[in-house]
Amino acid sequence: MEAFPRISRHVRHPIRAFQLSQCRPSPSSFRASFWSAKPLSTLTRTRHPQLAFRAPRYVTSQLSSHLVCRTPPGSLRFISTKELPNHRGPVARFFYRLFAWTGIFIVSCGTLVIAFFVYDASTYKETPDSVGDVPVSEAALSPRRGGPKNLPIAEILVDDEDCESMRAQKHKPKLVILGSGWGSVAMLKELNPGDFHVTLVSPDNYFLFTPMLPSATVGTLELRSLVEPVRRIVNRLRGHFLKARAVDIEFSHKLVEVAQTDANGVEQHFYLPYDKLVIGVGSTTNPHGVKGLENCHFLKTIEDARLIKNKILGNLELACLPTTSDDERRRLLSFVISGGGPTGVEFAAELYDMLNEDLLKSFPKILRNEISVHVIQSRGHILNTYDEALSVYAEKRFERDHVGVLTNSRVKEVTPDKIVFTQMEDGKPVTKELPMGFCLWSTGVAQTELSRKIADKLGDFQNNRHALETDTHLRLIGAPLGDVYAIGDCSTVQNNIAEHLTTFLRGLAFERGKDPDKIQITFQEWRDLAQKVRKRFPQASGHLKRLDRLFEEYDKDKSGTLDFGELHELLVQIDSKLTSLPATAQRANQQGQYLGRKFNKIAAAIPGFQANEVDFGDLDEAVYKAFDYHHMGSLAYIGNAAIFDFNGMNFSGGLLAVYLWRSIYFAESVSFRTRLLLAMDWSKRALFGRGEAHFSPPLLCCLQYVSDMASPTNVVTDLMSF
Amino acid sequence: MEAFPRISRHVRHPIRAFQLSQCRPSPSSFRASFWSAKPLSTLTRTRHPQLAFRAPRYVTSQLSSHLVCRTPPGSLRFISTKELPNHRGPVARFFYRLFAWTGIFIVSCGTLVIAFFVYDASTYKETPDSVGDVPVSEAALSPRRGGPKNLPIAEILVDDEDCESMRAQKHKPKLVILGSGWGSVAMLKELNPGDFHVTLVSPDNYFLFTPMLPSATVGTLELRSLVEPVRRIVNRLRGHFLKARAVDIEFSHKLVEVAQTDANGVEQHFYLPYDKLVIGVGSTTNPHGVKGLENCHFLKTIEDARLIKNKILGNLELACLPTTSDDERRRLLSFVISGGGPTGVEFAAELYDMLNEDLLKSFPKILRNEISVHVIQSRGHILNTYDEALSVYAEKRFERDHVGVLTNSRVKEVTPDKIVFTQMEDGKPVTKELPMGFCLWSTGVAQTELSRKIADKLGDFQNNRHALETDTHLRLIGAPLGDVYAIGDCSTVQNNIAEHLTTFLRGLAFERGKDPDKIQITFQEWRDLAQKVRKRFPQASGHLKRLDRLFEEYDKDKSGTLDFGELHELLVQIDSKLTSLPATAQRANQQGQYLGRKFNKIAAAIPGFQANEVDFGDLDEAVYKAFDYHHMGSLAYIGNAAIFDFNGMNFSGGLLAVYLWRSIYFAESVSFRTRLLLAMDWSKRALFGRGEAHFSPPLLCCLQYVSDMASPTNVVTDLMSF
Repeated sequence: MEAFPRISRHVRHPIRAFQLSQCRPSPSSFRASFWSAKPLSTLTRTRHPQLAFRAPRYVTSQLSSHLVCRTPPGSLRFISTKELPNHRGPVARFFYRLFAWTGIFIVSCGTLVIAFFVYDASTYKETPDSVGDVPVSEAALSPRRGGPKNLPIAEILVDDEDCESMRAQKHKPKLVILGSGWGSVAMLKELNPGDFHVTLVSPDNYFLFTPMLPSATVGTLELRSLVEPVRRIVNRLRGHFLKARAVDIEFSHKLVEVAQTDANGVEQHFYLPYDKLVIGVGSTTNPHGVKGLENCHFLKTIEDARLIKNKILGNLELACLPTTSDDERRRLLSFVISGGGPTGVEFAAELYDMLNEDLLKSFPKILRNEISVHVIQSRGHILNTYDEALSVYAEKRFERDHVGVLTNSRVKEVTPDKIVFTQMEDGKPVTKELPMGFCLWSTGVAQTELSRKIADKLGDFQNNRHALETDTHLRLIGAPLGDVYAIGDCSTVQNNIAEHLTTFLRGLAFERGKDPDKIQITFQEWRDLAQKVRKRFPQASGHLKRLDRLFEEYDKDKSGTLDFGELHELLVQIDSKLTSLPATAQRANQQGQYLGRKFNKIAAAIPGFQANEVDFGDLDEAVYKAFDYHHMGSLAYIGNAAIFDFNGMNFSGGLLAVYLWRSIYFAESVSFRTRLLLAMDWSKRALFGRGEAHFSPPLLCCLQYVSDMASPTNVVTDLMSF
Repeated sequence: MEAFPRISRHVRHPIRAFQLSQCRPSPSSFRASFWSAKPLSTLTRTRHPQLAFRAPRYVTSQLSSHLVCRTPPGSLRFISTKELPNHRGPVARFFYRLFAWTGIFIVSCGTLVIAFFVYDASTYKETPDSVGDVPVSEAALSPRRGGPKNLPIAEILVDDEDCESMRAQKHKPKLVILGSGWGSVAMLKELNPGDFHVTLVSPDNYFLFTPMLPSATVGTLELRSLVEPVRRIVNRLRGHFLKARAVDIEFSHKLVEVAQTDANGVEQHFYLPYDKLVIGVGSTTNPHGVKGLENCHFLKTIEDARLIKNKILGNLELACLPTTSDDERRRLLSFVISGGGPTGVEFAAELYDMLNEDLLKSFPKILRNEISVHVIQSRGHILNTYDEALSVYAEKRFERDHVGVLTNSRVKEVTPDKIVFTQMEDGKPVTKELPMGFCLWSTGVAQTELSRKIADKLGDFQNNRHALETDTHLRLIGAPLGDVYAIGDCSTVQNNIAEHLTTFLRGLAFERGKDPDKIQITFQEWRDLAQKVRKRFPQASGHLKRLDRLFEEYDKDKSGTLDFGELHELLVQIDSKLTSLPATAQRANQQGQYLGRKFNKIAAAIPGFQANEVDFGDLDEAVYKAFDYHHMGSLAYIGNAAIFDFNGMNFSGGLLAVYLWRSIYFAESVSFRTRLLLAMDWSKRALFGRGEAHFSPPLLCCLQYVSDMASPTNVVTDLMSF
């Protein structure tokens, strides 16, 4: 009788309980269980693992096998059925488990899918949410006119009343940001909500992940995966976005002049007032005074990428037509990239990939033999900003892939069908030309119209022809202190240590009632000055390591002190060593983050200062350190290989490097959304290639189409013509 | 001693076996196991399930717990460690299993990911495959001129020598297909490789999944997901593709005149010879002679979809600017769809979804209140080709969503800022107008230029103003029998039973030497005739069910026979009952498949006929049945709801219907590629919405940009202007 309690202790399945209640009354089974404690324990032992694995069906079959236990001579049958499982070999058991696991796997996957569908369903609004009456202040609908040009002044925007937090921001200091590039977006992501009344002005309503633009031109990536709607980014701050161009700035009135072409094609101008203005308008392509750039493509915007893709595929299609002569075919298939910087090189690489991996599968073979890709580079190496070893690696790679690299070459003119350039051959420039069906112009950057206008306005304060000069607090030099900042490609940080310090010393000298030129600086004073310099010009710290040595070196007369001239010379030397920051996304990003953090501090500090009625003078300097750029290194994709330059630590390699290259950008990407899209795109490429079809009619047809829109008859015929 | 064998019988894990070998020599453990058969059985009972679910780590821990069993007083320790598991509650056990499963799940997922990466890596070509010398016949590079217009004749194409199978096809009968729409693609997918020298001519190098185009205009789907490169489809047959327009056909010379604009913008014309020609050039938008269509958008191509999206988002952005007056804002946000057919309705629905679900989250609220969507429909109901119940359901739905439906209205004129239309109000037409910021024109179809040219050429043979007439074998009427076929929207199947039969009877009468007008048809003869009709005009079968009743009905004089007049009247009656086929993707698809199958049969039959020198007369009729259209039903998406009309069996509903709607198109989609992309897109929409940012500058800027490309100075300034 002791067998039973022990069994029931391990019986957890209702049906099992039922079995036992079935078995108990039957004398035979009773006997069986009583005398054969052995087989019974066997049974319970063995059934356990199976129960763990079996679907209900098994249990019921067990049940049935139990029911027979009541038919005499049940005892024997009972034991035999029970012992059956023991005879199952390890293989059988392995498969049980395998099936169980597969089952589990499938079930869990299924659950995920269903869950997703449920979520998807929840994203559809059954009934439109009625926003009811929206309060909009009269001032927003018909703004008052004013300012130097008597334009409408947008003091209040249509969505200033849209929600509680917006209403709260209405009277906060107005922060206006121009441009939706790396700098502006980095800043927007750093700012705390509620501190400022933020307004972003940009002709593009999306942030473009520029480093990957070359991939998008050939369809490795969807354009959509590289853009993030700025409205979403601005929404975090409950800020405002205006899709328009800034055309001028009235520093004295604290007004930005903004323009946009309205539906009827008329330019509408208005003023946007600011308390703090951040200029992040980026740069534009540098024409280098070359004639015929209208025959080139550029690579700055999404639209550029689209046009490039259309052009390339259009050329390939034209090359297949029987009316295309041999020379014309060779011309159509000659792709020239002017500029051996990262953009140019990566584009060349991607282009080569597309041609080699995808297109030529489905195009006639003759194209394969007549396609040529050339990179024209003015310097001695492509990627000349990188470590030379890497440049060489890249050039080797290109050589292997039959991508022609023409170094020491300057483009002179671009005509619709050829590109004329001079190449240095043993010292003498030789003029050459390439027949060309497509030319990408990616040589350096130049100032935008707005930047030039601002520089002119500020006159002597701005002496750099390539970018707007800021101090190390990124404040635009010449503009009222603390009003206007400039970040990203449109700006450069001024390193005028000598000038800065000498003025400072002059002041000091006059305080002491001395003639500055006669001032003598001891080593102690020099140490303090150096400290000052480090704080104000972080970039210079690297050159101010061995102070004593510097002191000795410049103390020509070994007087143990530096006189004014000696000091000045020293500082000028240091200035000359400081290079201007590179015009990269990396720098813009760091500057944006820096400004964001500083503005958070400023917003926090102002009330305190005001409460204590402190005239806080140079607020920026008071609340936050000067901007210090940390170079994280550069990387480039060069056709199924990639190269990395982490501050001298170089690395180049094949596919693995490519995956690394991707993962870095993947991590840098703006949002979870874009990351997922990137992953999807890379999978798509692997599965289906780059999709040579996905493109709207080539530029020519596009021109055709659009110009046709002009006259009613044309458009109809155009639509009707097959 | 008997405990052991039984245990070992249940010991299958190597480590367990090891435990026992460890335990046996130790007398303490021996005693323990001998006297405590009970706890021992307990131990094995309980350990089993754990083993089943434990990761190896657990097993080793077991091992260690065993090793202690040798240290005296091991016996106690031994048992205690063994009994430990029993004290673990079901919860603990549950979590063990849970963890085990999660582990398995993660591992298997990981494996999948790795596997994918490996695959991905395999898709990169490390070394470019050198195609070596490509043989291209001289005739392909410089084709001889000839034909009525003395144009180059492309008898041999550049890729005719590219591979074995292409060389084999070189001298097969030339099959030329015009257009890359539903019909052509369906046919290409049906054809057997190697039977014909196939050449596809189309201005688009992609097949567009038209039914889902409305979704693409608002970004629910990527355009890329709706297109399949035709080159890939053609590749299956090792066929050829030319991206060009067919402009004329020389039936007598068996030449198609093809044109394409070359890189310099010059129209290049050439001839393409054919043995069999299939015209699938589709249709174009029907202007209905309305003025100002250049102010409307159309929805036929990818480019259209892109321009529409740009225009809509451009308007929304303009509506946010402070310079935009209230009226102007209302105008910009008034979207009008002219045409209440499936396209118009689905577009209206998608547009409403986009505005309601996505855009207005990030745009000022005021837009929400001023947006209006109107559908202008000439008939009494929208979707008038559907069952009325469904139309009403759709209208109700729209009413709830504040989508205005203007029935019985005809557009008279479209100006840049408003649309003028007349609406019937109690019998009298009343002229009204709507301010309009965007207008989609989707009202019916018209002939393409090519179709009209062909119809004119064939003169009296072609009497239909809307489409090319074919016989029931889809052969173009008027063209040499069996040379030219027409399928899809550009064609219509002629149902001239009366004419056809009477000519036949006349022939019969003359054979019998009788005056046809005096001929008397007995019921028996009538049965045979009906059989003939059914075979030749499958569409008519439905009307030829009760032959006896028809016979009686039309046997006016009750003579028991039909005289010629009576028969003719009967047939005319049937003709009148036959409606022309709808201009839908469904029909085009079926016709394409039909032709594909027939051409396979023809290719198979010809050799036999030739061998037996049989003059096979009407080859088509000899080898294959006439075309018979089977309507599968229609469906439409109407804003988070969908309606279905399966031959009278109606069904309409909300989200579930939408999923059904999707799954149907999902199944109909061209390729695995597009299916996966569709799935991805739907997921994207669920996760991130429709992405208001993903769009190149609005049409205006596009115009601007493109026109700027004209002059060098402009383009530079345009690129520089911020």
